[in-house]
Amino acid sequence: MTDLEVFATELRRFVAEREWAQFHDPKNLAMLLASEVGELVAEYRWVTGVAADEHSRAAAPRARITDEIGDVGIALVLLCERTGIDLLQAMSDKLERNRARYPVDRARGRADRPED
Amino acid sequence: MTDLEVFATELRRFVAEREWAQFHDPKNLAMLLASEVGELVAEYRWVTGVAADEHSRAAAPRARITDEIGDVGIALVLLCERTGIDLLQAMSDKLERNRARYPVDRARGRADRPED
Amino acid sequence: MTDLEVFATELRRFVAEREWAQFHDPKNLAMLLASEVGELVAEYRWVTGVAADEHSRAAAPRARITDEIGDVGIALVLLCERTGIDLLQAMSDKLERNRARYPVDRARGRADRPED
Amino acid sequence: MTDLEVFATELRRFVAEREWAQFHDPKNLAMLLASEVGELVAEYRWVTGVAADEHSRAAAPRARITDEIGDVGIALVLLCERTGIDLLQAMSDKLERNRARYPVDRARGRADRPED
Repeated sequence: MTDLEVFATELRRFVAEREWAQFHDPKNLAMLLASEVGELVAEYRWVTGVAADEHSRAAAPRARITDEIGDVGIALVLLCERTGIDLLQAMSDKLERNRARYPVDRARGRADRPED
Repeated sequence: MTDLEVFATELRRFVAEREWAQFHDPKNLAMLLASEVGELVAEYRWVTGVAADEHSRAAAPRARITDEIGDVGIALVLLCERTGIDLLQAMSDKLERNRARYPVDRARGRADRPED
Repeated sequence: MTDLEVFATELRRFVAEREWAQFHDPKNLAMLLASEVGELVAEYRWVTGVAADEHSRAAAPRARITDEIGDVGIALVLLCERTGIDLLQAMSDKLERNRARYPVDRARGRADRPED
Repeated sequence: MTDLEVFATELRRFVAEREWAQFHDPKNLAMLLASEVGELVAEYRWVTGVAADEHSRAAAPRARITDEIGDVGIALVLLCERTGIDLLQAMSDKLERNRARYPVDRARGRADRPED
């Protein structure tokens, strides 16, 4: 088992002990994910892009950002568990498609690519 | 290296080859994450909760959902790479805090918990 | 002036008195909007679709939902003010395009329309 | 009737003609709102805060941003219609609370306010 699978197993147990699977249909989990990402976005809304790296290193915001990233990751793993979608595989497959979609010679240094 | 670290290394190379790190400050990546989650949410907005599991298994929506999960995962790993936050650790730490916050005997079968 | 314009004027004064326009570039306001919508989504994540109307009427959730809708509306009006985009016109123009895009005879009773 | 009420009436007719009210419970509409905001956020994710005003004025992005603002506004008005929440009132009430929460002398020029 990978580390991610070990974590997913722990998470499944956490949910089972609380009998929360009944609330965790994929629609609800997509909403959980959206609400957690909203909290993460809130951490950066008043910070300039230039200051965003430093903001991510300062103790207090870093603790909050790490906490929100934990929430977002948990919501994403819950959704993958529920739907039986392999997160690592999904990311790898998408990265492969992105390689074809954004060839190095055309995409280099350009932010004006259509959609990510 | 864990599978997640192997993937993160590949992703870093993908970004470096395209010289995209200049666009990937944490603020922009939080926005990338929010926009990708918006696309995932769109997959479920007209599906009832009852039908959401089946919708996630049907071929065409499953392909799109897997694709969106890939995008969301990539955005999240990019943010973790940029900020130096360990995703697995952040999730494990948060799960630990959630264990304390939602004791089994009080949280069992209840969706009316305050915040996740 | 329409009621919306009267409100926008009040909102402009509120922002000016606090010297917050410096933080309110359109990028930051888009993030504000995303974070406020995340809070609104959180209100409905554990409620079934069937129970969502009733949930919206019950006193305590209704107060929170009204509050979040206020936040979302304010963020949207701030963005329109900053960019000089007329919200009512933008909505009317989009509704017009949606009329052409979803002709009654083809769209009636169908949720499987492509994108809204 | 205010302009906003006139628009809401048109929107209600648009939905009724297509028999879409069956899909428009408040949970689904909150998801519609989140997905539309995700598209708006996408418009600004690679633009710096400094360049975001100019980006909002350039013809092509302005047309897309206006379109997305139309979508977000429509989703918000649909939710208000469905729940019977008065958007203008909700915004005014929230602005009033924000006046108390962020007194001018303490909030002036400060972005580090807790939550908006």
